Amino acid sequence: MVLETVEAGGLAHLSYLLGDDAAGVCAVIDPRRDVEVYLDLARRNNLRVTHILETHIHADFVSGSRELAARTGAPIYVGAAADGYGFDHEPLKDGDTLEVGVLTLRVLHTPGHTPEHVCYLASGGKGSSEPWGLFSGDTLFAGEVGRPDLLGGGSEKKLAAALYHSLHDTILKLGDEVEVYPAHGEGSPCGGSIGDRNTTTVGYERLHNPKLKPMSEAAFVEKVLTGLPPAPTYYRRMKKVNAEGPAVLGCQRLLPTLDPERFDAERRKPGTVVVDAREIEAFGGAHVAGALNVALRAEFPVWSGWMLRPEQTILLVTQDAADVETVETHLIRVGLEKLGGYLRQGMRGWLEAGLPFETLPQMSVHELHDRVRSKRKGDGLQVLDVRRDDEWEAGAVPTAKHAFVPDLRKRLDNLGLDREKPLAVYCGSGYRASIAASLLKAEGFAAVENVPGSMKAWKAAGFATEKPGTGDDRDDEEE
Amino acid sequence: MVLETVEAGGLAHLSYLLGDDAAGVCAVIDPRRDVEVYLDLARRNNLRVTHILETHIHADFVSGSRELAARTGAPIYVGAAADGYGFDHEPLKDGDTLEVGVLTLRVLHTPGHTPEHVCYLASGGKGSSEPWGLFSGDTLFAGEVGRPDLLGGGSEKKLAAALYHSLHDTILKLGDEVEVYPAHGEGSPCGGSIGDRNTTTVGYERLHNPKLKPMSEAAFVEKVLTGLPPAPTYYRRMKKVNAEGPAVLGCQRLLPTLDPERFDAERRKPGTVVVDAREIEAFGGAHVAGALNVALRAEFPVWSGWMLRPEQTILLVTQDAADVETVETHLIRVGLEKLGGYLRQGMRGWLEAGLPFETLPQMSVHELHDRVRSKRKGDGLQVLDVRRDDEWEAGAVPTAKHAFVPDLRKRLDNLGLDREKPLAVYCGSGYRASIAASLLKAEGFAAVENVPGSMKAWKAAGFATEKPGTGDDRDDEEE
Amino acid sequence: MVLETVEAGGLAHLSYLLGDDAAGVCAVIDPRRDVEVYLDLARRNNLRVTHILETHIHADFVSGSRELAARTGAPIYVGAAADGYGFDHEPLKDGDTLEVGVLTLRVLHTPGHTPEHVCYLASGGKGSSEPWGLFSGDTLFAGEVGRPDLLGGGSEKKLAAALYHSLHDTILKLGDEVEVYPAHGEGSPCGGSIGDRNTTTVGYERLHNPKLKPMSEAAFVEKVLTGLPPAPTYYRRMKKVNAEGPAVLGCQRLLPTLDPERFDAERRKPGTVVVDAREIEAFGGAHVAGALNVALRAEFPVWSGWMLRPEQTILLVTQDAADVETVETHLIRVGLEKLGGYLRQGMRGWLEAGLPFETLPQMSVHELHDRVRSKRKGDGLQVLDVRRDDEWEAGAVPTAKHAFVPDLRKRLDNLGLDREKPLAVYCGSGYRASIAASLLKAEGFAAVENVPGSMKAWKAAGFATEKPGTGDDRDDEEE
Amino acid sequence: MVLETVEAGGLAHLSYLLGDDAAGVCAVIDPRRDVEVYLDLARRNNLRVTHILETHIHADFVSGSRELAARTGAPIYVGAAADGYGFDHEPLKDGDTLEVGVLTLRVLHTPGHTPEHVCYLASGGKGSSEPWGLFSGDTLFAGEVGRPDLLGGGSEKKLAAALYHSLHDTILKLGDEVEVYPAHGEGSPCGGSIGDRNTTTVGYERLHNPKLKPMSEAAFVEKVLTGLPPAPTYYRRMKKVNAEGPAVLGCQRLLPTLDPERFDAERRKPGTVVVDAREIEAFGGAHVAGALNVALRAEFPVWSGWMLRPEQTILLVTQDAADVETVETHLIRVGLEKLGGYLRQGMRGWLEAGLPFETLPQMSVHELHDRVRSKRKGDGLQVLDVRRDDEWEAGAVPTAKHAFVPDLRKRLDNLGLDREKPLAVYCGSGYRASIAASLLKAEGFAAVENVPGSMKAWKAAGFATEKPGTGDDRDDEEE
Repeated sequence: MVLETVEAGGLAHLSYLLGDDAAGVCAVIDPRRDVEVYLDLARRNNLRVTHILETHIHADFVSGSRELAARTGAPIYVGAAADGYGFDHEPLKDGDTLEVGVLTLRVLHTPGHTPEHVCYLASGGKGSSEPWGLFSGDTLFAGEVGRPDLLGGGSEKKLAAALYHSLHDTILKLGDEVEVYPAHGEGSPCGGSIGDRNTTTVGYERLHNPKLKPMSEAAFVEKVLTGLPPAPTYYRRMKKVNAEGPAVLGCQRLLPTLDPERFDAERRKPGTVVVDAREIEAFGGAHVAGALNVALRAEFPVWSGWMLRPEQTILLVTQDAADVETVETHLIRVGLEKLGGYLRQGMRGWLEAGLPFETLPQMSVHELHDRVRSKRKGDGLQVLDVRRDDEWEAGAVPTAKHAFVPDLRKRLDNLGLDREKPLAVYCGSGYRASIAASLLKAEGFAAVENVPGSMKAWKAAGFATEKPGTGDDRDDEEE
Repeated sequence: MVLETVEAGGLAHLSYLLGDDAAGVCAVIDPRRDVEVYLDLARRNNLRVTHILETHIHADFVSGSRELAARTGAPIYVGAAADGYGFDHEPLKDGDTLEVGVLTLRVLHTPGHTPEHVCYLASGGKGSSEPWGLFSGDTLFAGEVGRPDLLGGGSEKKLAAALYHSLHDTILKLGDEVEVYPAHGEGSPCGGSIGDRNTTTVGYERLHNPKLKPMSEAAFVEKVLTGLPPAPTYYRRMKKVNAEGPAVLGCQRLLPTLDPERFDAERRKPGTVVVDAREIEAFGGAHVAGALNVALRAEFPVWSGWMLRPEQTILLVTQDAADVETVETHLIRVGLEKLGGYLRQGMRGWLEAGLPFETLPQMSVHELHDRVRSKRKGDGLQVLDVRRDDEWEAGAVPTAKHAFVPDLRKRLDNLGLDREKPLAVYCGSGYRASIAASLLKAEGFAAVENVPGSMKAWKAAGFATEKPGTGDDRDDEEE
Repeated sequence: MVLETVEAGGLAHLSYLLGDDAAGVCAVIDPRRDVEVYLDLARRNNLRVTHILETHIHADFVSGSRELAARTGAPIYVGAAADGYGFDHEPLKDGDTLEVGVLTLRVLHTPGHTPEHVCYLASGGKGSSEPWGLFSGDTLFAGEVGRPDLLGGGSEKKLAAALYHSLHDTILKLGDEVEVYPAHGEGSPCGGSIGDRNTTTVGYERLHNPKLKPMSEAAFVEKVLTGLPPAPTYYRRMKKVNAEGPAVLGCQRLLPTLDPERFDAERRKPGTVVVDAREIEAFGGAHVAGALNVALRAEFPVWSGWMLRPEQTILLVTQDAADVETVETHLIRVGLEKLGGYLRQGMRGWLEAGLPFETLPQMSVHELHDRVRSKRKGDGLQVLDVRRDDEWEAGAVPTAKHAFVPDLRKRLDNLGLDREKPLAVYCGSGYRASIAASLLKAEGFAAVENVPGSMKAWKAAGFATEKPGTGDDRDDEEE
Repeated sequence: MVLETVEAGGLAHLSYLLGDDAAGVCAVIDPRRDVEVYLDLARRNNLRVTHILETHIHADFVSGSRELAARTGAPIYVGAAADGYGFDHEPLKDGDTLEVGVLTLRVLHTPGHTPEHVCYLASGGKGSSEPWGLFSGDTLFAGEVGRPDLLGGGSEKKLAAALYHSLHDTILKLGDEVEVYPAHGEGSPCGGSIGDRNTTTVGYERLHNPKLKPMSEAAFVEKVLTGLPPAPTYYRRMKKVNAEGPAVLGCQRLLPTLDPERFDAERRKPGTVVVDAREIEAFGGAHVAGALNVALRAEFPVWSGWMLRPEQTILLVTQDAADVETVETHLIRVGLEKLGGYLRQGMRGWLEAGLPFETLPQMSVHELHDRVRSKRKGDGLQVLDVRRDDEWEAGAVPTAKHAFVPDLRKRLDNLGLDREKPLAVYCGSGYRASIAASLLKAEGFAAVENVPGSMKAWKAAGFATEKPGTGDDRDDEEE
């Protein structure tokens, strides 16, 4: 037997190649869009790809199914959907079985995360004739269940109820001994708070998953829809792309390297955005005016998907030439395909060309603390928290105002911020704050500073937080 | 959390790097001797190796613990043993706990496979505060339990009884939901018949492992000691090396390439053996006189360990230069460190130098079948089966005699074979047969042929087998 | 400056990426068809490909120019040709200059190998303002000059005369100090006898190249057309493909792995050929009936191009799964794109499936020598030499008949060979002999044997050769 | 023939593996200390390393000869030296020849760069029986000659005269057609101004190398000792290490990752220095107090060798975990072996731990220009140029003071700088300036700023420079 897990970093996405090497066949479950990795695994193990399996219509990345079908000739299997799909596929229904050599995959219809969601229950192999593994897609994760609210349109409650039944009437009916292989690990927004193991078991989840404790359907619906992180707005776009069938890209063109001068000219064209994927302190030291700082190291594809639009032409600034291809792949995975080029030799090239640059000062939490305290005595520093609502509500820096980073653009006018006065931006660790700060600079804020380390550093330094709406910071603001 | 599985092919050996990437620390469990792979994983994940953990004194490979300790400075932990160890270590006893960042490893003393054997029960990590994984070493595999007979010296029954209690009183007391990470996968002789998944769960084994069905201690002892494959004789040597502490090798010298002429001179020196690691049909086509054909693709380290002695100087013939390093690594893993060099450009070099070569004719099962049938009418073909006793007893080619390949040397004189007459050798698929055939040629058998495909091909071709001692082949032999 | 040499093994083809890393631009000269290597070099060095340069219409491989243009958007430059080209291009004429950053490439029209051939004379770079390098294509190699006879159609003498003038009036007019970067190294049939350095200098060739010694045009024409190895017949096809513009392949589909049973069924279909790319002794040990043994290690693309036709469906047998992709690439480079799949697990799979196989006995030169001697006394062994005419004429095994391997099919009936009698085939080292022997087996020769090591081994063993037509072997044959 | 060039980035060091693949032997010329690369090349080509050749006692890196000897058993050959060597070697004298298969290396004694320097003149190989290549070490580079001043001790003139004779009486006596393979490329301080090609020819240098124009010995001595960049002070140490024989390192220990807290504790220990290898703008954005910013991308080993001492314990901050091993290798190559560990997750880890950090503001050349102009009218900005003397003398930013970065520590007190007032530091592109600025911060300068892009940007922006000592800046300073 061959069972290989393929991880797509940044998206915390897990896909699987499951095969019978004696028979020379395999299935790929929930493939990512850059499919060469599956072809390599197939070659190395002498396998023919006979099944491309989707657990559901993904919302957080562009599916690689059609790309893989084009490279292997294998059919795409996906749970039957009311509205059908815009591409060739084999529709699945509950109870279907697929044979992959000695392996049998039984289809379990598990609506909840989405209506058409299916799981695959694997049995077969030497010493494993009974069901041993569940490829659970976005229905069940380690320590979490799939979110039923991503589809929007008021379907949450109905889907949450369906999820209750999928979990209790289908999945928990399986034996405790069954291993669970989900489509996501820690960090994916497809689950509220996924644990940090990639696999789990039905039994472990039955015992320890807080959402699987005995409770009524109503209680579950309530619980599963409460305290959810906001759904990335680009999910709706992804859904549509995946239902219609994403374009088959084939081999990529070489992304052109751009001279500083040409980069400078291109960036000024309408519909163009500069994405600076370097670390926040490098962006702080020097950057191209107007660039958005989405650091490669901090869930780059999620924040890119959220902050950028597919019709924009993206120009890249990276730390190294080696990062360019990684960034390109991340963007393509979330359907951002309109890349215009990258800055040759990064900021080094720009700086040596004598072009003007900007800086984003980095304020330590120590200074922030001092100034927040003195603010109460008259310092004009404005503080902005760009974390999610639940983070904000759990405790914030005194005097801070709040807008979650993806909402910042539209909420900007209502925050009562003064564009001319000093403004410190923070988040959990400084990365989202740097996205926000770079956006604010582009919007004309004159004296923005980023707080690297942000809330993690604030707490590590021993500074107290306040519950929003409770502290005397409100008084300060009233002054 | 970081959990990486490292596989040592050929030995079906599984080792693990388990770490807390938030805290930057990790443990390595049952490391193999070529340890660079762990250092790379540690570097990539920003980890410091703080614990080197052995589940037991391994018999099938040289432990990499001391090598890894020399490269990391981490201490070696191992179950306390009556006779102690010849190297610095931290002895463990049942109930001890080790902290690796947020992870806790509880030590479970599980004698059976060996007296000092311990398992490590892991808990900790986000959403995983309860025990979630058992690093079970050679106590429990997918579909199998560890063999208690490898230590020899009459300790089998006592160890088998201990294993019964380790399994029932310790391991099966754990929850069904606990995932099991064993030290071996399919193909390792450390278990009788290990399944083809690398992981399993306590529950799956409780339900489906044939050795864990409810039975008395006596019945278990009987069952677990019955029908075992023979223990490789090199295991005793390995045990000793690992208890004393294997030599730390550090960087390897470049294995010298040898001219055909020099190779020819070296191979004639006393105490030297030529190992030809090519496929059996390539060996069949042309080989250096006296070479032993242990094919790289067929459990090379096991058969090398079994057929070679550490005091021999080994000269290599491989298919490609790229194979040399792989072969070298395999040999070092089983403590065969005395390598004299490899034949430059393999057989191509030898042949172009105009040196004499030998061939080993490959007999198809079709021809074997014809000749065995006609033999009964007078053909002089001798047939030799070199499989294990259990394979032999399950059914053999009519008229065959039998000696398991590692026993061949010492049993040769008692098999009643005529060195001058045609002899066909077969096994399960042709690889062990080629080891045996090459050995017989070196022993002076004049007309040996190998049967590629062997019993697999025989059955696939639809030919019948006979239970040894029952067929009319015995009559043939009496004639 | 960036100057990277890319070698295509088997074809002894050299291509170049030449760039100005300060300006971030580069040219690629004579690209091979699998172009990812140039994209990687461009990415690593922050370069944009601005020029794709052909020195001429290649005959020995399918040009990668169009593939590279599709991936980079760069224009293709090529010497103006009378008949034009079937693809978009920028025609070049003598004296044109191309600017690649600080580098200048001056176009030198150097007809001879082909009428449209151009060389590129490079100058520029720090400390290198004067011409320093000549990208000489197939006009001048280390120790050789390009062959003017490959175009056929009676143009040889005219082209040879043109080559004389290109060399003497253009290239030797350059300074002795100019380094020469040719399109081929040792082993390419595009030159009669190319040396084993990849680079040389104008001065070195002026002094030591035997074809550049002072001589008249007539003497040169005579010399350059004498003793040439035969032109591979597939060159004409390549030429046509390259002039018309080869298909842009893009990403390759995963080549399907085939079960032994399915492989067996596919190979019997009309228009299908099995290519066994393993070493000759492995082929000798066991192979699929009818397979052609073109060993991967011995100029595989040249012999494949010569022995196979693009309309044939090719099925592959390789030593390892890892070889499949290499073999595929080699075939695609010479325009053999119709691949049907590869045998899963190679011969191992075939043999274990119990399918019939054939062998090709390997005869040592020692045995050949004995039997040739005894033949004169009545042994019926036939001997066939399949080397080139010039090799044959320099001395052969006594009693041998001769046909160059690519001519074998059509000359078979005139060689006077008896299909039922023993036949030993040899060449220079055994590889071409194995191609021929496998072909003869497929043609129904009952008792063919290959002679590994062949003439190299024969000489190394100290055996004498005879000039064809002079020895007493003729007498033998007359007897 | 096999001829492979191995480049050691940062040092612009070129070493060579030259072998005869038919005979299976090779020599390695001027190996770097991390020798695995040569072993890989030898393995891939089926070669045995039979000769380790030094052209001279290197001053700019620790030789890998002893390391390679330990891994291959090959002897080390080096020109005979008056004082002998502290390691086993084979001394060479002018006219000696070494045979490496079909290749012959003739030893040419070429004193000048050092007294014992030898070059190796290669002949042999197919079509190359006459001398074709000169491995010229540090005697002749593309566009330059070796520096005779590095040995110090007043030997410059004598060595320069010897170099004159080595070049004219030995090297230029060779044919123009001979290719030259030097030990260094562009950027190495071992030559004054080496060109940007890695190879050249005797003829090209005879014609175009400014130091090889016809001139008298006296004129040459004058010319070759004029305008030289300063000799790195660590060269003397390297020389000694290499003459005595550097320690054989073998496999490296895993460099420990350090928690921010532990890193913070370690950095405060006496004799410890923090090296921050990130880009200058990242260092500018946030760094650990006291860290020296030697950017990995800008000749890291040279500046590390120059600015650090081998008895210091070095703690590393890098951009990525992937950079750690590269930095480690660079340091070991220049004999800085005392590494204490690296900061886990780089600055991200530090910042999230809430530890204090510092910033180094980045001043644009535009602002510098404005302030320098206004300075003349009273602005207090101090400007420091840390380039070499020759760069400085060619034209500087008005009002600047000057000290070459390695001299800064000792010249600090004489520069008349005010530690409390603003200070802008610049160099050629900003990298050396960042070394200097970080050093000045550690020395207590309160308001240092770095000028990224520096002189390149200054000029690109169109600003004028002034010759030091000539401009009205002096007047300014006098005011």
